[in-house]
Amino acid sequence: MSWEDNVRKVVPYTPGEQPKRKDIIKLNTNECPYPPSPKVQAVLDNFDAADLRLYPDPAASDLVNALAEHYQVDPQQVFVGVGSDDVLAMAFLTFFNSEKQILFPDVTYSFYDVWADLFRISYRCPALDENFHLKKEDYLTENGGIIFPNPNAPTGLMEDLSVVEEIIAANPDSVVIVDEAYVDFGGVSALPLVDKYDNLLVVQTFSKSRAMAGMRIGFAIGSQKLIAYLNDAKFSFNSYTMSRLTIACGKACVEDNAYFQQITAQIVETRERTKKELTKLGFSFPDSKTNFIFAKHESIPAAELFAALKKEGIIVRYFNKPRIDNYLRITVGTDAEMDSLITFLKKYIENRSV
Amino acid sequence: MSWEDNVRKVVPYTPGEQPKRKDIIKLNTNECPYPPSPKVQAVLDNFDAADLRLYPDPAASDLVNALAEHYQVDPQQVFVGVGSDDVLAMAFLTFFNSEKQILFPDVTYSFYDVWADLFRISYRCPALDENFHLKKEDYLTENGGIIFPNPNAPTGLMEDLSVVEEIIAANPDSVVIVDEAYVDFGGVSALPLVDKYDNLLVVQTFSKSRAMAGMRIGFAIGSQKLIAYLNDAKFSFNSYTMSRLTIACGKACVEDNAYFQQITAQIVETRERTKKELTKLGFSFPDSKTNFIFAKHESIPAAELFAALKKEGIIVRYFNKPRIDNYLRITVGTDAEMDSLITFLKKYIENRSV
Repeated sequence: MSWEDNVRKVVPYTPGEQPKRKDIIKLNTNECPYPPSPKVQAVLDNFDAADLRLYPDPAASDLVNALAEHYQVDPQQVFVGVGSDDVLAMAFLTFFNSEKQILFPDVTYSFYDVWADLFRISYRCPALDENFHLKKEDYLTENGGIIFPNPNAPTGLMEDLSVVEEIIAANPDSVVIVDEAYVDFGGVSALPLVDKYDNLLVVQTFSKSRAMAGMRIGFAIGSQKLIAYLNDAKFSFNSYTMSRLTIACGKACVEDNAYFQQITAQIVETRERTKKELTKLGFSFPDSKTNFIFAKHESIPAAELFAALKKEGIIVRYFNKPRIDNYLRITVGTDAEMDSLITFLKKYIENRSV
Repeated sequence: MSWEDNVRKVVPYTPGEQPKRKDIIKLNTNECPYPPSPKVQAVLDNFDAADLRLYPDPAASDLVNALAEHYQVDPQQVFVGVGSDDVLAMAFLTFFNSEKQILFPDVTYSFYDVWADLFRISYRCPALDENFHLKKEDYLTENGGIIFPNPNAPTGLMEDLSVVEEIIAANPDSVVIVDEAYVDFGGVSALPLVDKYDNLLVVQTFSKSRAMAGMRIGFAIGSQKLIAYLNDAKFSFNSYTMSRLTIACGKACVEDNAYFQQITAQIVETRERTKKELTKLGFSFPDSKTNFIFAKHESIPAAELFAALKKEGIIVRYFNKPRIDNYLRITVGTDAEMDSLITFLKKYIENRSV
């Protein structure tokens, strides 16, 4: 017997590589290719470090209120955390607390099973159909909770809001979490449903569409009842999760809606252009509504392309997992970055078939 | 049946008040009265917000390495989190994972029972002796883990390192967490023991002695084995807990050791002077080795003094709990703040006895 016998042993999530080299084209973790709103730089430029001696507002009210205003909900319907992973971890801990299995798709964000394992939550993963769409019947059975991303990652596919609503409505005894990390690139949010269904939690992030992955801000919107339970768990874990800088920068970011609209529209435009170029080169992909494209080539294995791109200094994401091991998840970068990607792929494919 | 039946219901920790008014003397949450190192302001002044578009280093290596260098341990012996509360929450989740009761004192940091309740860990709270000291025999029985602050909060009392070591040595089958949030004000750290006992985890924070409560940085140092388990749990919860700004500011802060020594020495000096003044006014207190004084008056109830001080705009902490409900926990502020406190108390006590 030793203290090690009492340790909660887990196999952690492996995040995408964060190389320190600056001379690469980084298309592997779905970051925004543009800087955050200039209002964020202004906050930093004017921040008095002396204020850091004091604890932040534990309720992060400035940020919560800015989000409530932006999304036109009550501040008591908003929960904030250290990235959407923190929000999702707290939601798993709070809401998936029965003996029943929770449900999420077989091809999805690969953190879900890690949280389930960490908190010893049993789960089942219904298979997406052959086109990577949810089969809604799979979610109309007894369960201890449901979570899925919409649009899904890593496929990029969007489910119709009618399908999402049907799943929520059919499960009044479960919390249904819709993980909308990628919704701002042409997706349709379930947010209008939060006042209709008190079991719906919508989770979003500042890491993609708001260009603040380095700041760590995620949030959830739901019924006041749901948010109150989530806050009780959060305040039983860590009173002060959001730093003074995070609150101030986050608020400034949300308030600059014009900039947000501008960069997300630009990314959508670049994505659609890139899709056309990739198609010409023999790639196919689900119709992404996100800031990435989940592409496979008609003849060249994804693992080979992944390695060739990496050698060229272009890093994309490759998942060596069932059903998706012949796909590359390519983040939509700037137009120039996409041009470099396309130019390299074109040359590589031509040389290979010679 | 409803989704609420599956919710993990908890009674959260209540942090000390964080008033937004600026014209008060805030002596209630043990913040540092001095600003952080000027090196922190320099980081903010030179930070390019564009860098925030990218995820931070998930290992927070710059900060971890700076701490390893400062405390002369291997980087693999250092764990960082969003304040020491985050570090402690992860440690409870990771290490207190048996069916056996964990142990902590009856008078101690009031978050311990909240974490135990959140994670459904059973616990027992041996009573401190009549002078608020640990009775070490209480910790030499079977248990699922041990945690205590040293110096203790809210008493401010330090246990001899020999007592601490005896408890660690007697419990090779449990992880022993020594919570050293307040050790930098004249306390003696258990850090030299981490290479001798692989079951010892020492937890410290930037929130008190490093004047960075608003930034949210805590850390733990222990054996590589212990830290590896803690990191596995952390990476199963949230890959990226430390923002780019947090890592950069934290590193700059640790590297400025001269400033750290200067402000902690100043606080100790102010504390010792304040103790003398309080004694003259009829207060008594355990011999604090922290940045607060846990004081009771010979005749005036603490609750009354708390209210009178608050009315004057001087906020201290009062715990309406068994054994300590006649004490005030008074943070050591600047000399000027302590002078205001003493002046008011003197006047109040004089007027009251007329």
